[in-house]
Amino acid sequence: MALSEFALIERYFRGCGAQRADVLLGVGDDAALLAVPPGCDLVAATDTLVAGVHFPHGSPAASIGHRALAVNLSDLAAMGARPAWALLALTLPQAEEPWLGEFTAGFAALARAHAVALVGGDTTRGPLTVTVGLLGHVPQGEALTRGGGRAGDVLFVSGTPGDAAAGLALEQGELADTAPPAADVGYLRERFRLPTPRLALGEHLRGLASACIDVSDGLLADAGKLAGASGLGCELSYTAVPLSEALLTLVGEERAHELAFTGGDDYELCFAVPPQNLARLTARLPPQRWGYTRIGVLDEGAGARVVRDGSVMEFSHSGYEHFA
Amino acid sequence: MALSEFALIERYFRGCGAQRADVLLGVGDDAALLAVPPGCDLVAATDTLVAGVHFPHGSPAASIGHRALAVNLSDLAAMGARPAWALLALTLPQAEEPWLGEFTAGFAALARAHAVALVGGDTTRGPLTVTVGLLGHVPQGEALTRGGGRAGDVLFVSGTPGDAAAGLALEQGELADTAPPAADVGYLRERFRLPTPRLALGEHLRGLASACIDVSDGLLADAGKLAGASGLGCELSYTAVPLSEALLTLVGEERAHELAFTGGDDYELCFAVPPQNLARLTARLPPQRWGYTRIGVLDEGAGARVVRDGSVMEFSHSGYEHFA
Repeated sequence: MALSEFALIERYFRGCGAQRADVLLGVGDDAALLAVPPGCDLVAATDTLVAGVHFPHGSPAASIGHRALAVNLSDLAAMGARPAWALLALTLPQAEEPWLGEFTAGFAALARAHAVALVGGDTTRGPLTVTVGLLGHVPQGEALTRGGGRAGDVLFVSGTPGDAAAGLALEQGELADTAPPAADVGYLRERFRLPTPRLALGEHLRGLASACIDVSDGLLADAGKLAGASGLGCELSYTAVPLSEALLTLVGEERAHELAFTGGDDYELCFAVPPQNLARLTARLPPQRWGYTRIGVLDEGAGARVVRDGSVMEFSHSGYEHFA
Repeated sequence: MALSEFALIERYFRGCGAQRADVLLGVGDDAALLAVPPGCDLVAATDTLVAGVHFPHGSPAASIGHRALAVNLSDLAAMGARPAWALLALTLPQAEEPWLGEFTAGFAALARAHAVALVGGDTTRGPLTVTVGLLGHVPQGEALTRGGGRAGDVLFVSGTPGDAAAGLALEQGELADTAPPAADVGYLRERFRLPTPRLALGEHLRGLASACIDVSDGLLADAGKLAGASGLGCELSYTAVPLSEALLTLVGEERAHELAFTGGDDYELCFAVPPQNLARLTARLPPQRWGYTRIGVLDEGAGARVVRDGSVMEFSHSGYEHFA
């Protein structure tokens, strides 16, 4: 089929996602016009997904659309920000209508769930690559950053890290020889395909957390980045890290821990809370309801260390590096 | 070489472009924090360049960096907006330091020239693709759009369209059999490699122009988009369109006109001015100094037409379509 760029934009991108009154001019002009609420700082992030690098070739289009937005939503969650507007730069080998319909459905469902409007973008021909630019806002001076932690602040992580890495392995046909229960396989694959950005948690952590980062490259690497940005190191407890039953069933305890510390793509939040805020944290955000776990502490040591029975653990790699 | 993503960001992207006091948090956290001036609307655009599609494989890295920013600056120019902050999503087959140094030098020089700070981005491995997200602002309610034109408004274009299309042909080794003067070849290739976004013109057109678009897909196509967004058609004069001496020397008059109307990549502005504003336009922005030319008029007719000696011309194609 030969859908013109104009027709493609009209059919798939205009009106995609939420409708917002602060979109003064959306898809279809040279640029979008947006009204930032008074008293707010603008928050902006961008992330790219490349076929064969960030997701397997042939992944479901809806999952690609969901993930392309989710990874950016997760960045805004880590700032304690509220997302509002997305730009979508989509490079496609060809404009296949069923694929585009599924892709935009996956994107739009997540966008509507978080009140995000698609306000602009670009469609180009080339190897499948999706870049989302995401804009949002946060009350002036209240954003969470990586660099606000102090020695003694307690580290937490949301969710059960490692699940997405196992899900990706399953997507790629690995781990299949273990004949795991179908429900566990389904759950883990979905953790990779349809990650859940922790936006509500991020917003509620403003005023409680001293620093925050989203876990995209592996918990050990990302906790280390938070600590490093704060001019500190951190110690993580091997036994404290939360593991899902599905992950334990699939790979066993040793490998589950390794994936939890070094696997990527979780899009959970890792955050530091000063001791004096801990009571308020658990009162306002009961851990069992909000799904986060105490895993360690910021300290004056070097880098991020995992400690088991008093000894520092070694892992084969400490997180994903694009050009390592 | 195996430069880590972290080292790559530190070496090439931190501090790239202008330094701005309104960047509260730039490259290196989960997202950027930016202060939008009070009384302004936010303006946001994104455009992608794909190797082998938007520029020839093996193009100079500095030119790719320049163009990736320039095509987005041109979008903001068309809105009458002032650019401020850029996000850079760079997908690379490998992290080659000399290439990266030249790419960021090309990007940074243009960014500094327009006071744009690089505030965030993503580097990924894959086929060479560059997506820039560009943010800026415009006084509330004063943005130029495509849709504000009225019948009788006069159409203008800046610069000499067609030059970039000839430059691209030269880049691709076409037109070489004509043995043109080296100075003309150099000029035309530079019009493709290093386009000049018309930001000062765009800002000065606020309050004078009724509608504006940047000429990226060809003058005929883009003038047609402006007219269509205004619910109108337009008539362009074959003889009025400005042609550079270099283009005329290289391809002759007939082909020069064809390239001027249908060639892409010029990144000039096409704008409509109501008759009652014409005297103010030429007084405030003398055409010979600002480099724009009257080329036609918005009317109630259908589509964009080029008229020569009273007859409507036919061209082989009316502009670039990514999926046609």
